[in-house]
Amino acid sequence: MAATHSLSSAALSSSSSSFFSHSSFNAKNPKVSFPGTRFRVKCVATSQDSMTAYKTSVPRNANMAKLQAGYLFPEIARRRNAHLQKYPDAKVISLGIGDTTEPIPEVITSAMAKRSHALSTLEGYSGYGAEQGEKPVRALIGKTFYSGLGIEEDDIFVSDGAKCDITRLQLVFGSNVSMAVQDPSYPAYVDSSVILGQTGQYEKDAEKYGNIEYMRCTPENGFFPDLTKIPRTDIIFFCSPNNPTGSSATREQLTQLVQFAKKNGSIIVYDSAYAMYISDDNPRSIFEIPGAKEVAIETSSFSKYAGFTGVRLGWTVVPKELMFSDGFPVAKDFNRIVCTCFNGASNIAQAGGLACLSPEGLEAMRGVIGFYKENTSIIMDTFNSLGFNVYGGKNAPYVWVRFPGRSSWDVFAEILEKTHVVTTPGSGFGPGGEGFIRVSAFGHRENVLEACRRFKQLYK
Amino acid sequence: MAATHSLSSAALSSSSSSFFSHSSFNAKNPKVSFPGTRFRVKCVATSQDSMTAYKTSVPRNANMAKLQAGYLFPEIARRRNAHLQKYPDAKVISLGIGDTTEPIPEVITSAMAKRSHALSTLEGYSGYGAEQGEKPVRALIGKTFYSGLGIEEDDIFVSDGAKCDITRLQLVFGSNVSMAVQDPSYPAYVDSSVILGQTGQYEKDAEKYGNIEYMRCTPENGFFPDLTKIPRTDIIFFCSPNNPTGSSATREQLTQLVQFAKKNGSIIVYDSAYAMYISDDNPRSIFEIPGAKEVAIETSSFSKYAGFTGVRLGWTVVPKELMFSDGFPVAKDFNRIVCTCFNGASNIAQAGGLACLSPEGLEAMRGVIGFYKENTSIIMDTFNSLGFNVYGGKNAPYVWVRFPGRSSWDVFAEILEKTHVVTTPGSGFGPGGEGFIRVSAFGHRENVLEACRRFKQLYK
Repeated sequence: MAATHSLSSAALSSSSSSFFSHSSFNAKNPKVSFPGTRFRVKCVATSQDSMTAYKTSVPRNANMAKLQAGYLFPEIARRRNAHLQKYPDAKVISLGIGDTTEPIPEVITSAMAKRSHALSTLEGYSGYGAEQGEKPVRALIGKTFYSGLGIEEDDIFVSDGAKCDITRLQLVFGSNVSMAVQDPSYPAYVDSSVILGQTGQYEKDAEKYGNIEYMRCTPENGFFPDLTKIPRTDIIFFCSPNNPTGSSATREQLTQLVQFAKKNGSIIVYDSAYAMYISDDNPRSIFEIPGAKEVAIETSSFSKYAGFTGVRLGWTVVPKELMFSDGFPVAKDFNRIVCTCFNGASNIAQAGGLACLSPEGLEAMRGVIGFYKENTSIIMDTFNSLGFNVYGGKNAPYVWVRFPGRSSWDVFAEILEKTHVVTTPGSGFGPGGEGFIRVSAFGHRENVLEACRRFKQLYK
Repeated sequence: MAATHSLSSAALSSSSSSFFSHSSFNAKNPKVSFPGTRFRVKCVATSQDSMTAYKTSVPRNANMAKLQAGYLFPEIARRRNAHLQKYPDAKVISLGIGDTTEPIPEVITSAMAKRSHALSTLEGYSGYGAEQGEKPVRALIGKTFYSGLGIEEDDIFVSDGAKCDITRLQLVFGSNVSMAVQDPSYPAYVDSSVILGQTGQYEKDAEKYGNIEYMRCTPENGFFPDLTKIPRTDIIFFCSPNNPTGSSATREQLTQLVQFAKKNGSIIVYDSAYAMYISDDNPRSIFEIPGAKEVAIETSSFSKYAGFTGVRLGWTVVPKELMFSDGFPVAKDFNRIVCTCFNGASNIAQAGGLACLSPEGLEAMRGVIGFYKENTSIIMDTFNSLGFNVYGGKNAPYVWVRFPGRSSWDVFAEILEKTHVVTTPGSGFGPGGEGFIRVSAFGHRENVLEACRRFKQLYK
């Protein structure tokens, strides 16, 4: 899986080129010339073919070089495709990358279609929106998810998704901070930290990067780290309900976490992208914990609630009470990053977000979430019946299955080879995930049932 | 304009909080509990009110602290709003931030509406797309803009806009590179460079950041820098047609630029977001220049072609021939950033992009561009008739007007105060813009005509 220095057909470059002949512009004539195919005259290139490829003198970013292999999910997609090549007739079922499969409720897509059509009218057209998101969307996110929690509309930044916001948060923090993550955890936290230069080299034996505190979360500690043994870091990434373990932290645990951050002067980046999957009394937002506004940021997403993985809409809450050590508000720097490095979420997606948060939209989202939670039960029942130790599931669309003493990638490969079902190897989420497999509940019902039949066949 | 250490209502924080009472989950019942308002019980917060606000111990990122004031365009929006407060009845016309105003042609919005509706069907639903963009979109961008130039489909990365891609490119380059920009230029290049830590402090007297090479572009040098006097840098940002000067580089000039980069082993980041506005024989793409694939990246956008400033769709070309000094392909690192820090452009926006590049869509885009170019002519004629030296306009939607010996911000304020027209002060684009005003041609015809009447009144 190590990165290699070649790209398909890249090794021997030739500088082919062509020149356009252009029609001239007439300001009275709306037909403007452009680089289309019609006016093109292909010329013979100045030959610069050579067996030795040209290299610039620009040094490769040493942080990029630290990254191991590809980002996890494209790597899984690659293995899935390789499997399909090997078994072209196999009915491959993907319970791997956590991608939603069920159609978006019509109350939501109709609103997006309506907004699309409106963009063709003078009254309905809109260009650049506020980088922070449209005011009604910010307001409705606040009202729906943070009512009574002291979060104000201007604390909420609408985005194209939590994953993208994680990097924007890392841009705010910069290189000179230390960070902690749950182990296992969603790989974007660690990888973006490496990219920003917050970490040391990857230590192969430990399967960890230097200068990251891996907070081990296991069945033995109820998937909540023993904070008395965790050294202080500047930033603490914490995802609940957790991806991949599917466990969600209790109010007592989150109160401990906030107190830990406050004692250490740390900033928690709390990922609540699965909060609506919580069935019990566990908090849906870190801001339910007293004092959290002074130590926490929360990032979340419509992806897993409304099937917006392709539509792209999320948000991040940076309370104005959160300050750097010099008293400068973190929200001001985040706002600067959002304005400079981003240009707002698509206005059509934002229309979808508004519809999601209407009474009908909320009801429809609850229906979708309920469907996936039924899938979760089916998967949990299956592995339970086979005698596995099964975790997660109750408050999240992920089932975390233990395969004691086995390598996650081996189990992943075994399941793929023998059942044509794609899962995710636990070790892809950090060394603490070794020996586990994450099974995603995102799938059509018949696929989930069929996958479970095959699991029963394999592990009976 | 210096940043201050306060946010509205931020100084005195109180940790209000509330606790939810949750309904319990039943896997057979699709009604899932969620953080809505219905189940909320507001509690009295643990009081942590204090006159001394809590601060974390996390140091503020020193690079963020280097940034001067706000990003240019939000700052202009702020001044526009302040003006509106002062003159609530004024008919303010915005020829400032370069935001498109004309409706999106229906052939394009229909395709987006259709895709939206399809997301509610089993067959039409799609979740996560490839982070690099949908294959047909990549292919059609290649065919439309790069046919015969040796750019392949997999060299093209579809994105949510060129501005966002600029930061992603900076993430690839990291902190240890030096960079050059045209002066004046679109401020995202410099600001993203500061954020990544490539620069020194801001030098107030010079109005420049340390460790950035400002390549002065003036009427005297035909808005193309004298490359014999420019020291080598790792990265060269180059925008043509240029924002803000509206000038576009000739084939000879771009050949010089590519040769300069090649001699120095530099990487050019070529911003061609206005290429379709070119009326004459000037190149639409840096890849028309022989050898450019080994030294250049190109970033572009549908924003100014199809009115997609709010829809968000762009692309970046990283040829596989482009290598770092160690021979590692730049495209591989860019791909890693795209996969780790981004999740693809909205699938609905991508459906719009496909429609833009259909024969009818291209014709429709040419119509929109032609309309804006007529606006440009009207603005140029106006300032010419008033005896100003006027630049740009021919190949771009921007008119660059000289006000010799005057401060750009003073002229901006004078025009706003006396005509209620918002322009952009040239110095906002770098010290080389001092003494100029950028007038954007994005506007409804009657507004452009009215603005020009007011200009004639003011400067007759």
